[in-house]
Amino acid sequence: MARENAFIVFQPAGRRGVVPRGITIIEASRRIGVDIEALCGESQVCGKCKVRIESGRYDKFGIDSGPGHVSAWQESESKYITAEERAAGYRLGCVARVAGDLLVYVPETSRAGKQVVSKAARAIAIDLNPAVRVYTAKIAPADLDHPTGAAERLREALSAQCGLKGDLAIDLMALRILPAELRKGQGTLAVYIWMDREIIGVTGGEGLPGLGLAVDIGTTTIAGYLCDLATGKVLYTASLMNPQVKYGEDVISRISYHLNHEEGLRRMSRDLVAGINRLIDDALAGAGNAGGRALFREDIVDMAVCCNTAMHHILLQLDPTDLGSMPFAPVARQGLDLKARDLGIAIHPAANLYILPNIAGFVGADNVGVMIAEAPYASDTMELIIDIGTNGELVLGNARGVVVSSCATGPALEGAQIEFGMRAAPGAIERVRVDPETHEVDYKVVGRNPWRSFSPPEEMGVKGICGSGVLDTVGELYKAGVVKKDGAFNKAVQSPRLRENPDTGIREFVLAWAAEASIERDVVITQKDIRQIQLAKAAVYTGCKLMMRRLGVTMPDKVKIAGAFGTHLDRTLALVAGLFPDCPLEAIESVGNAAGDGCRLALLDRRKRKEAERAARRVEYMELTLETDFQEQLLDALAFPHQKDPFPHLAGVVPDEILRQP
Amino acid sequence: MARENAFIVFQPAGRRGVVPRGITIIEASRRIGVDIEALCGESQVCGKCKVRIESGRYDKFGIDSGPGHVSAWQESESKYITAEERAAGYRLGCVARVAGDLLVYVPETSRAGKQVVSKAARAIAIDLNPAVRVYTAKIAPADLDHPTGAAERLREALSAQCGLKGDLAIDLMALRILPAELRKGQGTLAVYIWMDREIIGVTGGEGLPGLGLAVDIGTTTIAGYLCDLATGKVLYTASLMNPQVKYGEDVISRISYHLNHEEGLRRMSRDLVAGINRLIDDALAGAGNAGGRALFREDIVDMAVCCNTAMHHILLQLDPTDLGSMPFAPVARQGLDLKARDLGIAIHPAANLYILPNIAGFVGADNVGVMIAEAPYASDTMELIIDIGTNGELVLGNARGVVVSSCATGPALEGAQIEFGMRAAPGAIERVRVDPETHEVDYKVVGRNPWRSFSPPEEMGVKGICGSGVLDTVGELYKAGVVKKDGAFNKAVQSPRLRENPDTGIREFVLAWAAEASIERDVVITQKDIRQIQLAKAAVYTGCKLMMRRLGVTMPDKVKIAGAFGTHLDRTLALVAGLFPDCPLEAIESVGNAAGDGCRLALLDRRKRKEAERAARRVEYMELTLETDFQEQLLDALAFPHQKDPFPHLAGVVPDEILRQP
Repeated sequence: MARENAFIVFQPAGRRGVVPRGITIIEASRRIGVDIEALCGESQVCGKCKVRIESGRYDKFGIDSGPGHVSAWQESESKYITAEERAAGYRLGCVARVAGDLLVYVPETSRAGKQVVSKAARAIAIDLNPAVRVYTAKIAPADLDHPTGAAERLREALSAQCGLKGDLAIDLMALRILPAELRKGQGTLAVYIWMDREIIGVTGGEGLPGLGLAVDIGTTTIAGYLCDLATGKVLYTASLMNPQVKYGEDVISRISYHLNHEEGLRRMSRDLVAGINRLIDDALAGAGNAGGRALFREDIVDMAVCCNTAMHHILLQLDPTDLGSMPFAPVARQGLDLKARDLGIAIHPAANLYILPNIAGFVGADNVGVMIAEAPYASDTMELIIDIGTNGELVLGNARGVVVSSCATGPALEGAQIEFGMRAAPGAIERVRVDPETHEVDYKVVGRNPWRSFSPPEEMGVKGICGSGVLDTVGELYKAGVVKKDGAFNKAVQSPRLRENPDTGIREFVLAWAAEASIERDVVITQKDIRQIQLAKAAVYTGCKLMMRRLGVTMPDKVKIAGAFGTHLDRTLALVAGLFPDCPLEAIESVGNAAGDGCRLALLDRRKRKEAERAARRVEYMELTLETDFQEQLLDALAFPHQKDPFPHLAGVVPDEILRQP
Repeated sequence: MARENAFIVFQPAGRRGVVPRGITIIEASRRIGVDIEALCGESQVCGKCKVRIESGRYDKFGIDSGPGHVSAWQESESKYITAEERAAGYRLGCVARVAGDLLVYVPETSRAGKQVVSKAARAIAIDLNPAVRVYTAKIAPADLDHPTGAAERLREALSAQCGLKGDLAIDLMALRILPAELRKGQGTLAVYIWMDREIIGVTGGEGLPGLGLAVDIGTTTIAGYLCDLATGKVLYTASLMNPQVKYGEDVISRISYHLNHEEGLRRMSRDLVAGINRLIDDALAGAGNAGGRALFREDIVDMAVCCNTAMHHILLQLDPTDLGSMPFAPVARQGLDLKARDLGIAIHPAANLYILPNIAGFVGADNVGVMIAEAPYASDTMELIIDIGTNGELVLGNARGVVVSSCATGPALEGAQIEFGMRAAPGAIERVRVDPETHEVDYKVVGRNPWRSFSPPEEMGVKGICGSGVLDTVGELYKAGVVKKDGAFNKAVQSPRLRENPDTGIREFVLAWAAEASIERDVVITQKDIRQIQLAKAAVYTGCKLMMRRLGVTMPDKVKIAGAFGTHLDRTLALVAGLFPDCPLEAIESVGNAAGDGCRLALLDRRKRKEAERAARRVEYMELTLETDFQEQLLDALAFPHQKDPFPHLAGVVPDEILRQP
């Protein structure tokens, strides 16, 4: 790279590019298509453009974000950046200039287009029966004839007045505040009891209903649902990038980081816990503002967590080595009840944390969350559930039996490893239509309602393509004959949009011209991108097909797409692209963040925890790669929608001559 | 105080005095009778005389150990004192000079006459059945058909190979090391299981038997018994001054410290835990040296603790406020199973800690320890157990019923608040005989076998009087007619030893002349000292008598004296002094540190924990001060041996005319 240029990567968006040295970081972010907040127009008077310069080698980006790769500290920055933040690497984006290769982290508060994390809580039916319940008891004072301990008098009162067992355990932290709360409440206490077994908290007087937190830890995103345990209502949904993204985008690179760094596991765990604690503060602040009263960490008296097996192990600091190689055995499968304090999670000091069970190495607690939310094991109809995050997890079954498996989709379906791929943030193309005659393109971007055809080009502000936009694009291009059954661009198509990149020689299709983009370049999908999508969708398709074969199912009654990806998905185009075997279009539905829903259910209904344990034990795990024809099946599934399998339900949707392509 | 003098207090001995400014601290210690190690004769070349200068106000000593009250730092000190130690206030005693009032702490390593802490472990009968047992199990590897978690395979192996329940809990800390230990042991694990309920540790291969630690936390002294859980043997007994002594010598002053200081409870608890951690390191080093292999904190897999209620609350950071006022209710009475890590105690990270139950505000877990060691509730004979530490606890009963009570003895019987009182360290008078004719004195000092009558005077090196010496002295003086029944010196006695102090005008009796002392002064017992002993012994006597009345007992079959005090006690003189009601001399026995024995039993035999819980629940607590004639009884008990009660068993021991004094 020429000395006058520098390579720069912006996290968490993952956008990267080459910029001239000497420009400000905010200018660099603009050139690369990352929006940093700059209310004052870079006059150094608003302090909104704080970024953190990461220092060190980042092999996965091929970058050395060395010391001295950014211009020297200016006194004007101290007005907005505390000494502590400065020590952590924070700078003002409008002051600091690029002096070498850089990895720059843009905190949520500095992002102009706040990320749209589609992990909003769905309305789900919940039988409210939380693990932690609040009881009110009147405690008799001690007297000289019976100078029994405060704890014993509390137990007696709970037994006599609330019908609880007389031998309740009591957490040390509850014991510590008991006398002061007794004095405050003049003998009346609100008592927080976990599973009718353990006293975890006491508050003098009537006390408030406790809060609970369900946390769905994804490889990329963490979602937290702060709930009122008395009503089951979600008070606030907070979300956050998983701070571990800096150790690698997928689970395998996180496991490698553990294998290659002495303190790697502890470091990743600490970062994750710090992230969860930030999420907790965000949720409390958000719910507190909405509810008009201040909420505190101690108000959260119970917590449920779901995540994939790798996140599970990293959170708990369980050695993930065995997850990285055959037979991919986890350290623990059963759900675990832990003290949140043992993990450093800053909620009520005696609160327990329930982490849902794992099923197998690559089918984790998040999949169990999906299962208890969708309950296929209680269904008469044959359900196929596809949960696509950074990995793909598949569930197939009904009341007679359930099979689960995991498929290596890679992150392409989330928009990663795609030339112009980005997360579902403002400026991302999320819907695409391609005219079969003219091959002209219409599209919609996140954060703007009117489609391109109804807008002046310069108002579109396109920055890239998100996961659903990518699948839409390949489905439409195939349907329009621009992409052939085998995934190659059809050279016979005459369109200025279909061209060869002069630098790389790789064929590409223009979705949005530079005039419609905010990044001063055409936004394209390349032949390489399409190959990535083919690999990903073939993995899902093959998994579904092999599982159906195992259960003797010719067609599922229902196909449920879970995860953020599912929310934005066009179900017709998903079938056109061949993400799963043929089925009636009306059988396909999106079920949102089902893992998060399941986690919320486990938080609010203790019976769902038992159901989770039972489900995790009873489902059959299927290791797809052990099927003898796995590779063959995978190859056949690369084609659109499939090399051999018929798709009768696409009749009338995709032109016959295209569907019948050899 | 004249400007040229300074007031100086040496801790933990508690010795104090006035010394001229400008002398070295080692010189000051010598004048006051505290021995600091000085191998090199103060040539500043051995570094053995390290002391710590405490800085701040110490109201209980009426002293302000201000900055600048010691001479400036000398470079020669840095040869022996690290920067860290220097920051903590350490100085060389042969370099630093007194420049003002000072509180000086002499670490154990700098004490010339190492303290004799009589908490050595007695040989007691133990049914070995520890809470933590080690099992060896062979864990099946995971395979692709059954990729179950390591934890589940471990549970299955324990169930199939060791007959344990299949649903054992597993501590997070054990889970964290499980995969690495499985690899190390190639599938064979030593598994440490608590109460057949919880897996707390795993070690690859065969593993070593675990260690256990029983800790008896006294107000003044902490004793730790490091035991081999496989044999029950005591590997090492370590002891330490309770670091809380700096907050006050008795439990009431510790409770006051909590009431008067925001962070007082936490500070005392932290100091105590730091002390316990030092004790642990001492015990491991001692046992390791003796056994020829290094022992580590992680080797200690179980711990039992007994202590009085105040120490119990301070250790656990339970609010001790209610212990300080009627009806003296503790926060918790039941025994508690805690994670040692939650207290910051540095043993195995998953180890549990069992703290014995309390009975009432002033009858704590230490008394329960005494009870399970002596088991009066299983005895046919009527036993009276007297445990004298800084407080007195009394137990009376047999299999038909047991009563306990607490009496406010104050620390006089331990040698504190006595003019020349000191702990049972070398140079302390521990045995005394007074000739009834000549009133001449013979005595023995700790650390020297020949009595005074067989030694050259200058070899005695007397420094003071310890608890047993004090009781011996008053018993002998009474028997010899030097002290009258009412405790006053008999003015009719003509002896150069009985004199009036020219400064204070208080009458005193010389036990050792300056020529026999290492402190260049006569060692005396004063009229005030005798009053202190009268108050203390009357409290014990009254307690015994009121309890006997409650149970309708005219004379106990056995009188057991527990504690360090009991070990050194002359049982005849204890009866002569009237420490307890009349009984045959042969019925009196010393049972050593029974509380520590009980704690060790609870560590090594889990059934003893159940017995402790039962005993604590079933005994009757008697609040002595509620008896209507308590004050009257107390006054009558001030006399030697008692104002009214007959002592037929002293016939022939004490001359008739003295016993019959009005």
